[in-house]
Amino acid sequence: MTHAETPDIIVSRLPVYLRALQHMQEQGKQTTSSQELGEWVGVSAAQIRKDLSQFGGFGKQGTGYNIGFLVTSLREILHIQQVWDVAVVGMGDMGHAVARYQGFANKGFRVVMLFDSDPKKVGTRVGDFIVRDAANMIADIHEAKIQVAMLCVPANVAQAVSKQLVEAGVRAILNYAPINLLVPDGIRVQYIDPAVGLQRMTYYLG
Amino acid sequence: MTHAETPDIIVSRLPVYLRALQHMQEQGKQTTSSQELGEWVGVSAAQIRKDLSQFGGFGKQGTGYNIGFLVTSLREILHIQQVWDVAVVGMGDMGHAVARYQGFANKGFRVVMLFDSDPKKVGTRVGDFIVRDAANMIADIHEAKIQVAMLCVPANVAQAVSKQLVEAGVRAILNYAPINLLVPDGIRVQYIDPAVGLQRMTYYLG
Repeated sequence: MTHAETPDIIVSRLPVYLRALQHMQEQGKQTTSSQELGEWVGVSAAQIRKDLSQFGGFGKQGTGYNIGFLVTSLREILHIQQVWDVAVVGMGDMGHAVARYQGFANKGFRVVMLFDSDPKKVGTRVGDFIVRDAANMIADIHEAKIQVAMLCVPANVAQAVSKQLVEAGVRAILNYAPINLLVPDGIRVQYIDPAVGLQRMTYYLG
Repeated sequence: MTHAETPDIIVSRLPVYLRALQHMQEQGKQTTSSQELGEWVGVSAAQIRKDLSQFGGFGKQGTGYNIGFLVTSLREILHIQQVWDVAVVGMGDMGHAVARYQGFANKGFRVVMLFDSDPKKVGTRVGDFIVRDAANMIADIHEAKIQVAMLCVPANVAQAVSKQLVEAGVRAILNYAPINLLVPDGIRVQYIDPAVGLQRMTYYLG
């Protein structure tokens, strides 16, 4: 099955399965079942079997899934058998937190460049990096062939900065600004918005 | 249609529609169409009409949606016509960023308490608050009747802290730690994991 044919909703669950499987692996587990994986991630066993069957046969009836094989396969499917270089733009509180985030190890990403437009921040150290001047961002990202960026700038400039990122060659933007971005076809955007996450839960609290 | 009958996948899209509609509202727009809203959020117009029809009739054929009415209705459906008090646990980089996040205004939430277990952080000021001692967290949250928490502690203690939050009466946890939480039935967890967001995009980059 080609990429175009796999529904986005299935794709969106694969990283969640992978996270749970990598955690099982760290605990020393070798095999799991669709039931067990389902309990970890809050998805039915039937849905997990259906989702994974889109990509071939990963488990045998009665013996479950080999976790190591499934992890390797999911990493290939998600194209994270390689490590993607990531630029972080905007060195406010959130940019700082993202630049120093410890959760990317073994997940397929590494932060390699930080940018800000504030002269007071440019040249300062954050984690392992010196903050670069956003005035050179398009050239720097283009030269380094970076295709993935995390956008941590204020909402009122996020649209303009995203346009610059696309111009620089970025094809995937993880947007922390609380605003929807309009991007050209073929450019991917995902949103990190705590208000959305919270509202998905208060629906059920009432 | 009752809550139990509305599929989670539809519920998960409502906050995204609301965000886009509130943004249109800020721009002074009064009406929109399922086509226009769909372009903003990357969902088909047919899907938007179908999702909203679960909750009654919001638009008339040919005249589109009244944005103000739809915003008010979605806020009621998501139970954010009220403002929910939120506790933030863990005052590392991410906790700092979350505690000072400017995106909750008009979204139904306000941070009211911060906790950490590090004696060097307890008693310090972050944004408008003095960091409280996590040793008193269960009592403090229980007394304040807080039902929503954002969990920003390291992954290796996240499970234990989430158990304390549930004991304190919290029913909804937004988890920033890169780990799946096991919680009792009836407790909601949503995950903020940048690696998952990035992997959902690299699938398409290849």
